Amino acid sequence: MIIYVDAPLADVHKQRLVKHAAGDEFIFKDEIKDDQQRLEKLLEADIVFGNPKPPEWLEKASDLKWIQFPSAGFELYKNIKTNAITTNMQDYYSEPCAETIVAGILALCRGMDDFTLLKDQKKWLGYKARSGLWLLKNKRVFILGAGNIGKRVAKLLGGFDCEIFFYGRKETINTPADLEILLPAADIVVGCLPGTIETKGLFTKKMIERLHNKAIFCNVGRGNLLEDESALIEALMTGRIGGAVLDVTASEPIPADHPLWNCPNTILSQHSGGGSDEEFDGIIDFFLENLENFKKDRPLRNQVQLSKGY
Amino acid sequence: MIIYVDAPLADVHKQRLVKHAAGDEFIFKDEIKDDQQRLEKLLEADIVFGNPKPPEWLEKASDLKWIQFPSAGFELYKNIKTNAITTNMQDYYSEPCAETIVAGILALCRGMDDFTLLKDQKKWLGYKARSGLWLLKNKRVFILGAGNIGKRVAKLLGGFDCEIFFYGRKETINTPADLEILLPAADIVVGCLPGTIETKGLFTKKMIERLHNKAIFCNVGRGNLLEDESALIEALMTGRIGGAVLDVTASEPIPADHPLWNCPNTILSQHSGGGSDEEFDGIIDFFLENLENFKKDRPLRNQVQLSKGY
Repeated sequence: MIIYVDAPLADVHKQRLVKHAAGDEFIFKDEIKDDQQRLEKLLEADIVFGNPKPPEWLEKASDLKWIQFPSAGFELYKNIKTNAITTNMQDYYSEPCAETIVAGILALCRGMDDFTLLKDQKKWLGYKARSGLWLLKNKRVFILGAGNIGKRVAKLLGGFDCEIFFYGRKETINTPADLEILLPAADIVVGCLPGTIETKGLFTKKMIERLHNKAIFCNVGRGNLLEDESALIEALMTGRIGGAVLDVTASEPIPADHPLWNCPNTILSQHSGGGSDEEFDGIIDFFLENLENFKKDRPLRNQVQLSKGY
Repeated sequence: MIIYVDAPLADVHKQRLVKHAAGDEFIFKDEIKDDQQRLEKLLEADIVFGNPKPPEWLEKASDLKWIQFPSAGFELYKNIKTNAITTNMQDYYSEPCAETIVAGILALCRGMDDFTLLKDQKKWLGYKARSGLWLLKNKRVFILGAGNIGKRVAKLLGGFDCEIFFYGRKETINTPADLEILLPAADIVVGCLPGTIETKGLFTKKMIERLHNKAIFCNVGRGNLLEDESALIEALMTGRIGGAVLDVTASEPIPADHPLWNCPNTILSQHSGGGSDEEFDGIIDFFLENLENFKKDRPLRNQVQLSKGY
């Protein structure tokens, strides 16, 4: 098999691929400098492992039989026409994303952001810091999206005796109108919605206005969940709400002069939510398992349809 | 009743006391400037609410009937002879302390400390940050002390599928020798032991040496749990272990030139673990409830013996 790899792999991970799938030819895009040569190699390939760019090249690669995305999302490819089977990582990123969101919420509640800055300044605040801390126990949490990340967030919060409400098509709260009505009751809102047409701009400026003054808004889904990110920024800057934990934002990278950097009580985790030291080991485990399936004509795991988005 | 108050109360909390316990006379130590006058007032009091200093004054106050500590610990008073009933806050601080420890562990795992500093510098690291993150899921956690804080830490970690082992007299691991043998298996060690003679210096230099190179050491109990804090500092400075979350330290406040401030992957929560915006509301609720018990000759809640330490 000829396998074209367009994924940010470290040498150790490339070596694992080559060693475990001996007999296959691996072409690592980042080791080819010239675009024309890259395209030629892609056209020869049986399999793509990665998120190949530009996406349109996939339409030229008519011999391609299988594309394994190392990501959960594949929005870039939604208009691509290909006969290749496409597979993704589905819920692989749910655990790290959920842990990042809960880490961010707890950081704000227990002052981990402030203590990090105080340590940097070698400054002792001690007793005076206590009254600025909050408890997560018993807080009412609205989770937007009852998919894998949302469910995992709910599980991680289990020990904290939080009261959880899901927003979703088949959930307790199932229309934007109901969500808007109920929002003043939320202490914490966690957005974990996928990037579909129905969720774009779902969290409106009006909804931000209805959050109470200690509420924490979190987003680990897609940056376009917010109708108007500047309304959130204003609510944070003026202290109108309690804080925010944002793994995704409208602009990424966040430009140096962007007002988000100046927002108080805000954790910016820089779209790292899915990451961990184990990330690529797990992706490669999965790819090699699916490669075995492919070679033995067994059904591939995690098949998705590009046009549907799932 | 004459009630002498030596606790750091805000005006709003003083007003609550005065309003709810109308008919009683409250004497707030911090409103009296002169030490001689303070002592005179204490000698007139029926009840003390606070952690009165100097502790020895309590031995002179022979008419005192009841002392309510707003703290869980009362080591300062262990040698004091008094006929007054003494009560403390027992497990009141378990929830905030446990939340602070879990917040610190998750902050290290998910990079909340690094993202806070990056935000301060308006610097985007993004994708490159991912491989430096860890997952808390499935980690093996040794909890030293199976009291209220330790049990609460275990409960909070419930959703993260951690494997929990307790160290304590009646627990799975019940001698320092066994602890030392088993320590290389620990991903995270959480010290939540009270400050007794048996726990002083319990965590030895040798034990720090036996931690693996990604292990996180946490302490929310008493700062004297470590036999040799400088051994922990060296392990952190050289990257010999993964990190630390310290709510308590040998010196408090930590002096500006102390090496702890420079330790990487270290959260210093400055003995704030027990704090929250609800802290004094809850303490005053409890005091007023016990005051009602006292006036109606009902048994007081949370009675302790100074010499025993519990």
